[in-house]
Amino acid sequence: MTSPAETSSLRVALVGATGKMGRYAVNAVNGADDLELVATLSSRDSLDAIGDSGASHVLDLTVPSVSPEVVRYAVDHGLHVVVGTSGWSDERRAVLEAQLAEHPEVGVLIAPNFSIGSVLASEFAAKAARYFDSVEIIEMHHPNKVDAPSGTAVRTAGLIGAARAAAQLPASPDATEHDPDGSRGALVDGVRVHAVRLAGLEAHQEVLLGTPGQQLVLRHDAFDRSAYMPGVLLGLRTVASRPGLTYGLDGYLDLS
Amino acid sequence: MTSPAETSSLRVALVGATGKMGRYAVNAVNGADDLELVATLSSRDSLDAIGDSGASHVLDLTVPSVSPEVVRYAVDHGLHVVVGTSGWSDERRAVLEAQLAEHPEVGVLIAPNFSIGSVLASEFAAKAARYFDSVEIIEMHHPNKVDAPSGTAVRTAGLIGAARAAAQLPASPDATEHDPDGSRGALVDGVRVHAVRLAGLEAHQEVLLGTPGQQLVLRHDAFDRSAYMPGVLLGLRTVASRPGLTYGLDGYLDLS
Amino acid sequence: MTSPAETSSLRVALVGATGKMGRYAVNAVNGADDLELVATLSSRDSLDAIGDSGASHVLDLTVPSVSPEVVRYAVDHGLHVVVGTSGWSDERRAVLEAQLAEHPEVGVLIAPNFSIGSVLASEFAAKAARYFDSVEIIEMHHPNKVDAPSGTAVRTAGLIGAARAAAQLPASPDATEHDPDGSRGALVDGVRVHAVRLAGLEAHQEVLLGTPGQQLVLRHDAFDRSAYMPGVLLGLRTVASRPGLTYGLDGYLDLS
Amino acid sequence: MTSPAETSSLRVALVGATGKMGRYAVNAVNGADDLELVATLSSRDSLDAIGDSGASHVLDLTVPSVSPEVVRYAVDHGLHVVVGTSGWSDERRAVLEAQLAEHPEVGVLIAPNFSIGSVLASEFAAKAARYFDSVEIIEMHHPNKVDAPSGTAVRTAGLIGAARAAAQLPASPDATEHDPDGSRGALVDGVRVHAVRLAGLEAHQEVLLGTPGQQLVLRHDAFDRSAYMPGVLLGLRTVASRPGLTYGLDGYLDLS
Repeated sequence: MTSPAETSSLRVALVGATGKMGRYAVNAVNGADDLELVATLSSRDSLDAIGDSGASHVLDLTVPSVSPEVVRYAVDHGLHVVVGTSGWSDERRAVLEAQLAEHPEVGVLIAPNFSIGSVLASEFAAKAARYFDSVEIIEMHHPNKVDAPSGTAVRTAGLIGAARAAAQLPASPDATEHDPDGSRGALVDGVRVHAVRLAGLEAHQEVLLGTPGQQLVLRHDAFDRSAYMPGVLLGLRTVASRPGLTYGLDGYLDLS
Repeated sequence: MTSPAETSSLRVALVGATGKMGRYAVNAVNGADDLELVATLSSRDSLDAIGDSGASHVLDLTVPSVSPEVVRYAVDHGLHVVVGTSGWSDERRAVLEAQLAEHPEVGVLIAPNFSIGSVLASEFAAKAARYFDSVEIIEMHHPNKVDAPSGTAVRTAGLIGAARAAAQLPASPDATEHDPDGSRGALVDGVRVHAVRLAGLEAHQEVLLGTPGQQLVLRHDAFDRSAYMPGVLLGLRTVASRPGLTYGLDGYLDLS
Repeated sequence: MTSPAETSSLRVALVGATGKMGRYAVNAVNGADDLELVATLSSRDSLDAIGDSGASHVLDLTVPSVSPEVVRYAVDHGLHVVVGTSGWSDERRAVLEAQLAEHPEVGVLIAPNFSIGSVLASEFAAKAARYFDSVEIIEMHHPNKVDAPSGTAVRTAGLIGAARAAAQLPASPDATEHDPDGSRGALVDGVRVHAVRLAGLEAHQEVLLGTPGQQLVLRHDAFDRSAYMPGVLLGLRTVASRPGLTYGLDGYLDLS
Repeated sequence: MTSPAETSSLRVALVGATGKMGRYAVNAVNGADDLELVATLSSRDSLDAIGDSGASHVLDLTVPSVSPEVVRYAVDHGLHVVVGTSGWSDERRAVLEAQLAEHPEVGVLIAPNFSIGSVLASEFAAKAARYFDSVEIIEMHHPNKVDAPSGTAVRTAGLIGAARAAAQLPASPDATEHDPDGSRGALVDGVRVHAVRLAGLEAHQEVLLGTPGQQLVLRHDAFDRSAYMPGVLLGLRTVASRPGLTYGLDGYLDLS
C-alpha cells in the first residue's frame, strides 16, 4: 500500500509494551509497512522517552491508573493517541475533552473494544432490534474471567435496549412463572443476558433475535488477542484525521 | 419393511387424540404401514372403547390426571402401553410396577421425551462429560413456556452431574466474583443451566463441553411436534418385546 | 397503532390466495388491525374482481407466468402492488418501469425475499465484508429444493463480492491443492458457497467472515413461511408512500 | 492422583520434539505429575538416545518417513509406543503387527486424531446415524490447509456411511436437479462433505443429522494444538495395559 517514495510513515510510541496486549501490538505495528515503532515503554517508564523518540502517535495499552497521565502527556505534546486501556469513565473523558479544547488539532481514540467484528456485531444487533419481538444475549468466556456479564455484553444490551425503546417496542414476550434457580439470567436494559464460562473458550458472544417463524443470530468469536490488532491498526491510521475525542471504534467504521 | 404375508399389524388405540400431540400421532400412526389405528379417544371418553376396538397396544397422550387410569385399564386387559403424558412420579411408577407384577407379559414405556435426537444428545453429553473440565447447558424455547429451565435440561444436567461425580471430577472452573444480576444462570446438579425464551423458536438445547484448546457442542433442535413421532412409533413397535416398565426412550435405543 | 378515528384502513386484494404463501398471507392480513382483506383470488380468477372489491392495494403471490398480468392490471387501475412472485427479470422490470412512468403516483414493491431477517443478514454481511480476509456462505434447506445454491445465497454472494471488490480486497486465502471430490463448493462472485439439504430443515443461511484471531457469523433461520409475513405487511403498509418501482425489501428497511 | 509412595512414574522419550506438536507435548508431559520426560529427540537424532535414557514409553511425533523406524526401534527394545505421526497405511500396520507378534507384551497406539472431543463426536455421529433420514458434514479449517476435505471428515463420513449401510437406510433425500457450480460438495461414502477455509479458524467440524421436525448437530472445535494433549496423555497412561496394536484413540475411550 505504501510507495517507496512515501518516506513519512506514522511513528508510533507504544506504552504498555510488556503486557499481553502490548506484546501482540509490538508484532502488529512492526508487521505494518506504513507504521514505524519508534519507542516501546512499560507502564512504569518515564514518559519523556516518548518525546525523545520523535513519535507522531502514541498507543496506550497500560493500566487504568496510568492511562490518564499517558494521554495527557501525549496531547500536551501534540501527539495523536489511541487508547486500549479500560477505566475511562465519563468523568475522566470530560477532563480530557477540556484539555483537547486547547489542542484542537489532536485526535484521540478511546476504544473499550478493539475487535472490529465484535463492534460490528453490536452495531448490527442494534440496527436489527426494532424488527424482532424477542432478543437475548449469550456471552461465553474463559473461566478465569472475574466479572459477569462481560462489558461487551452490557454495552450490546444497552444499544439494543435503546433501539427497542426508540421503536416503542414492548418487552420481549416471556410467560415464565416458575424459575426457582435463576436460569433466565440477568436483565440488562430490558435484555436477558446469559454468561457462560467454559475451559477452552476465549471471548465469544451471540445475539439471538426472534420473531414468529424466524431467528437472526449474530455471533462473534475472538479466539485470541490477535483479534484486536486490526482495530488497533485502523485506529492508528485514522486518528490523525479525526481531531478531538472519539469514544468507541464504531466511530471509525464505515457502515453506510 | 413389512412383507405381504405379514397380516397382523399392530392395532393401536390412541387416547388423547384431540390434543396437539394427539393430532400429530393420528397422522403418524395412519402413515405407518405396520400400524393400524383402531380407536381414537379423547381424554374424557369411556375406556371401554379400547377393549371393544380389538387393540393390541394403547398410546396414551392424555393429561396427568387421566393417564394413570388409562394405563391401569390397559395393563388389566393385557395391552401394551406407550405413554407420552407427563406427571409419572416415582410414586405413580411404583404403583404401576406392582400392577405389572401380576401381568408379566405386558410391556409399558413411559417416556418424558419422545424426541430421539434429544434423548441421544443427553446420552452423548453424559458419556462425554468425564473428558471435559467444563460443561454448561443452554436451553432455548418459545416464549409461552411457563417453567424454566426445561424438564429436558434438568434431566440432562442430572445425567451429566452423575457422570462427573462417578469420574470424581471437581466442579467446572469458574473465577466469577461479581455477577450482580444473575447472568451465570441456574446451578442444577453442579451444572450451569441457561434458559432462553425467544419468539420463533420451538424447543432447542445445546450442551457445551470445554477443556483447554477444544470444545464439543451437542445441539438438538425440535422444530415442531412431528419431532416426537419417530420416537412414538419406535415405542409402539418395540414395547411388546420389552415386558415390564421401561422409563425413558433411551432404553429402546441401540447405542452400542 | 391505528386510532379509532382512522376509518380508512388499507384495502387489500390478494391474488394467489390458494398457494402456500397465499394461505399464510390470508391469516396475516386478517390478523392486522390496519389492513382489510377485501378480495381473495386464485391465479386463475378474472382480475376484474380486484376492481370490483374497492381495493387500494394488490398483493401478488401467484406464479411467474401470471404475475406480470396481475401487476399490469393493478398499475392501470392506480392500485399499489406488493409482489412476492419470482421471475421478475431485468427485462420484465424494464417493461413495468415504462408503464409506471404513466402512473407516477403508484408504488410497486417486488421482493425476491420477504424475510426481514434474511434481508438484514445479507445487508450486514455486505457491510462487514471489507473488514475480513475470508468469507464463505453455507445455506441449508429442506431436501425437496430443486436448485442449489439458493437464490438468497447467490444474491448474498453478489453483495459481498461487490463490497470486497469496492474495497480492493484480494481473494479469500486458500491453499487448497487437492480436492478431488469438490468439497470446497461453488464459487459465486468470488465467494465460496456450500449448499446443505437436510430433512427437518426449512431455510437457513450462515455467512462466515474470518480474519486472524476472530470470526463473525451471521445466521438466519426461517422455520416456516410465517417468517415472510412481517415483510409482506411492512411492504403493504409502506408501498403507497414509495411511488415507482422498488426492487428488494431492503429499500424499505431503516438501517441508518 | 499419584500417591507420594508411587516412585515409578512413566518414563517418556519424545521423538519429534522440535515440531509444533512436539513443543506442545514437551509442556504437556512436563506438566503431568505421573509422567517423566527422560529424553527429547528431533526427527534426525540417533535413536540410541532412547535406549540410553531408560525410557519405558516412546512418544513419536515425527514425520511419515521416520515414524516406522522409530516404532520398530521401540518395539525391538520392549518399549510401549504412542504414535501421532500420519502415514500409517494398512501395509505399514501389517508389518508392525508381524513385529509385535514377537513382542506380545508391548503396546502400540497409533492415533490419526488425538483430540478426544473430535473422536467422541465422530463416534456419536456413527451411533446416531441410523435414527436420521439425512446427514451431512461441514468441516472448517484455517486457509493454509492443503487437502480438502480433512482426514477427520473422511473418517467420520466412513463411520457414518457404514452405520447407515448396516441399518439398511436409503440415501439421504435430495431433490437437487440443478447445481451448476458444485455447491452440494463432495460425496464421501454416501455422505455430503463441505470444506470451509477461513482465516481465524483452526480445526472445526459439524455433523448435521436431520429427520422431519428435528435436527441433531455434533460440533467440535479445536482452537489450537493444546487440544491434542489430553489424548496424548491418555494414550501414554493406557498403552502399557493394551498389548498389541490399537489403531485410533476411540479404542481407549470408555463410551459404555
